[in-house]
Amino acid sequence: MTDAYGRLLDLYREIHDLGGIMGLLEWDQEVVMPPRGVAGRARQQATVAGLQHDLMVAPELGNLLDEAAAALPESDDPWPRANLRELKRRRDRAVKVPRRLVAELAEEGSLAQSAWAEARAKNEWPLFAPRLKRLVDLRREEADAVGWNTERYDALLDEYEPGAKAAEMETLFTSLREGLVPVLDALRGAPAPPTDDLWRGTFAAADQDRLGRIVLETMGYDFTAGRLDASTHPFTQGFNPGDVRVTSRYDEGDLQTGLYASMHEGGHALYEMGLPADHTGEPAGSAISLGIHESQSRTWENLVGRGRPFVGWLQGRLADTWPQTFGAVAADDLYRAANVVRPSLIRIEADEVTYNLHIVLRMEIERALVGGDVQVDDLPGLWREKVRRYLDLDVPTDRQGVLQDIHWSLGLFGYFPTYALGNLYGAQFHAAARKHIPDLDAQLARGETSGLLGWLRTNVHGPASLYPAEDLCRRVTGEPLSTGPFLAHVRAKFGDIYGVAL
Amino acid sequence: MTDAYGRLLDLYREIHDLGGIMGLLEWDQEVVMPPRGVAGRARQQATVAGLQHDLMVAPELGNLLDEAAAALPESDDPWPRANLRELKRRRDRAVKVPRRLVAELAEEGSLAQSAWAEARAKNEWPLFAPRLKRLVDLRREEADAVGWNTERYDALLDEYEPGAKAAEMETLFTSLREGLVPVLDALRGAPAPPTDDLWRGTFAAADQDRLGRIVLETMGYDFTAGRLDASTHPFTQGFNPGDVRVTSRYDEGDLQTGLYASMHEGGHALYEMGLPADHTGEPAGSAISLGIHESQSRTWENLVGRGRPFVGWLQGRLADTWPQTFGAVAADDLYRAANVVRPSLIRIEADEVTYNLHIVLRMEIERALVGGDVQVDDLPGLWREKVRRYLDLDVPTDRQGVLQDIHWSLGLFGYFPTYALGNLYGAQFHAAARKHIPDLDAQLARGETSGLLGWLRTNVHGPASLYPAEDLCRRVTGEPLSTGPFLAHVRAKFGDIYGVAL
Repeated sequence: MTDAYGRLLDLYREIHDLGGIMGLLEWDQEVVMPPRGVAGRARQQATVAGLQHDLMVAPELGNLLDEAAAALPESDDPWPRANLRELKRRRDRAVKVPRRLVAELAEEGSLAQSAWAEARAKNEWPLFAPRLKRLVDLRREEADAVGWNTERYDALLDEYEPGAKAAEMETLFTSLREGLVPVLDALRGAPAPPTDDLWRGTFAAADQDRLGRIVLETMGYDFTAGRLDASTHPFTQGFNPGDVRVTSRYDEGDLQTGLYASMHEGGHALYEMGLPADHTGEPAGSAISLGIHESQSRTWENLVGRGRPFVGWLQGRLADTWPQTFGAVAADDLYRAANVVRPSLIRIEADEVTYNLHIVLRMEIERALVGGDVQVDDLPGLWREKVRRYLDLDVPTDRQGVLQDIHWSLGLFGYFPTYALGNLYGAQFHAAARKHIPDLDAQLARGETSGLLGWLRTNVHGPASLYPAEDLCRRVTGEPLSTGPFLAHVRAKFGDIYGVAL
Repeated sequence: MTDAYGRLLDLYREIHDLGGIMGLLEWDQEVVMPPRGVAGRARQQATVAGLQHDLMVAPELGNLLDEAAAALPESDDPWPRANLRELKRRRDRAVKVPRRLVAELAEEGSLAQSAWAEARAKNEWPLFAPRLKRLVDLRREEADAVGWNTERYDALLDEYEPGAKAAEMETLFTSLREGLVPVLDALRGAPAPPTDDLWRGTFAAADQDRLGRIVLETMGYDFTAGRLDASTHPFTQGFNPGDVRVTSRYDEGDLQTGLYASMHEGGHALYEMGLPADHTGEPAGSAISLGIHESQSRTWENLVGRGRPFVGWLQGRLADTWPQTFGAVAADDLYRAANVVRPSLIRIEADEVTYNLHIVLRMEIERALVGGDVQVDDLPGLWREKVRRYLDLDVPTDRQGVLQDIHWSLGLFGYFPTYALGNLYGAQFHAAARKHIPDLDAQLARGETSGLLGWLRTNVHGPASLYPAEDLCRRVTGEPLSTGPFLAHVRAKFGDIYGVAL
């Protein structure tokens, strides 16, 4: 390879290291940092974000990028081309954004995250609103600096799902909604719907933590390269494949929340742990998009974790931990109880059918917010109105409504749609995996996940950012992304459980 | 103040933030990081150290420093002058050291720290020796780059104790040794020496942790601005006054180890928490020297924690936690048991009299190592020889010998002498505090520490780096640093406990 290319990767590795450090600063803030550390942490984040930006926009990096691209030899190795493509994409965006704005966003995001946590704990929206206003202004400013054609929201969406457009998302979401509404209607009319009572009881957080560790290890999560902790909002932080941390949150009265949060985050972590070690610290060595990232968490949470085969294995582990409660429970009943479809207030606890309605709601709100059609002060009311419209529910407190998610407090507007993409990619990948691994269900029923994990490592994790997300989908499944596999999965699974024709 | 001065402080704040981040990377590595994170963490540390160096040596900072110094108005406010003095001192050192060396030292230190932890756990010196060799070479290179007059060791010592010279340390240490040898001889001949059997038993780590929290809170440690965790080697990391974390280490068969480790680290933490909030992130807003830092830990560990008044209060807390074991123990007996003088292998558990011999031993070894008179391969043997000479003990394993301390694994040569300085400064400050607070002993006997803490805040913590350590000592005590107050304290205390004339 050329000298310019080698030097370019060396320069980029410092940017990558600072990215890992930003992740650690966030992990630490949410998991272990004492409360009075907030102001100092916000400054540290601003400093790192500013320095990272300096490195990215440095003229030397631009010159090396041009030089390396000009000298790139024809080769069978696809990595150099992907590295240059990814680096150019990120640099092109960075050079348009003023350094001051980058640092300010990092600092305000850190302070707002802390304000959100307090506002959520106390159920006091006014503690958070002023900070949120500031973040909205800053991100609107960023979007205008980056530039956009059709609408401002596209400039933000692009950061998390490169190349995606709000109008395309809307088309997909409309197709989703149109597919799901009749399903929901049919399920509502089912003669003998399942209940999730089986999951309720008294479950000490320490026992749930222990169960989470067993499940994560069974999934293939490597505890010598990771940790499981508790936090207000479950999340995953991967600094490099040797250090990928997950958190969960435990409800001592309901086992489902923590168990499936752990599996969800474990799915994210398996992606991070499976990124190609040979390309750690290279531009193309990290996750290609948040939609693809989310496909991995949803696969493990829902397609595996709430699938009949794995629930059979899970039932045994629950019986080991709580023999009184689960010793006599039939796996089929547990499976039905894990798949109750019921509109609910909290997104991360939503079932597979109604989950996407939560995303539609959030995307509509943030699109309007970023576009300037609604203001931060309108949000609690707007939230209530949309929850009423899409989920037919009343929002009793902001804590269970507009304050439930951490994302906006970090300035992450344009991020939510990637969750729905994750559901679609996940179902499409899973259908392909089942074709390639004929006895997959039998393996999962024995708690054997290595077949599926191996397939994901080869087809999804290992390629990292070698191909754009859409291309990756075509390579893995032979088809472009569509709502078909997800809707087919939902119809087959819930038609069977609810005993209705879908 | 001038524009140049304001801009200078803005630039320095980024250097300060990176310093806090280096601290977090270390804290995380020693307390929570999964084992496979080591390589990535070493790279992150190298990147941060390199960027910090870039900021420090940037020509802009040099120009602003000159400009601000030239424009500095006469003023009653001593901070601007101190800020310029401290910044100039640090920059003068930094510009002499190549960037490559800074990054390499950070990366090698991180890898060596991990190798040391493994070597110590397995008692296998060869796992650590090659890494240590590399670090010695790098730090010798650094010393030569910085420059020195009398001996290379001075260039390293200066980093931790600005202005100190090895020859002066030797003079102080000789005076110490000459004062302590007759004390040790007299104690050896005492008719009824105390024993520390009272501290031995079975004490669950969780209970010790709980006791540690009670004691730390009583000392004035603020848990909303800090944490207490367990680690192989107890330490304190302060990122800013709002986030100062301590660790301890628990021996379930011996209560003294963990209790006094917590008080020791708590003393360091009180200094960090007491640094002037108005000057956070300024060059003169941090600790002036490690000798002064250590004076604070030794004050709380020994002068308070092992003093008769506070032991009376402690006895009550021990009786609360372990009524069976401590309910009937007399405070006087506990006091005697906390002050057994007996040469021992582990420095951090050494008594007040023999502790300094551990430092003499280490300083002699590292001075010879840095000077080139001994090699890394000689260290285990040399260690045994010196422990025999100074402490009259056989070293059964390297784990209890040359591998016991973390410092060399981090490349910290020239750091150990500051521990002995801490004992001297601590005793001299404490003597002054007792003069100013006539009923100090009565306060401590009631577990009231606010009088002492307030005095330390005003006289030692608040001034931060306003005055060089020696000047601070003169201002606080009216005298230059000497061995007098420490030796007087030792003679009075142990003469009384051992019933001998000293």
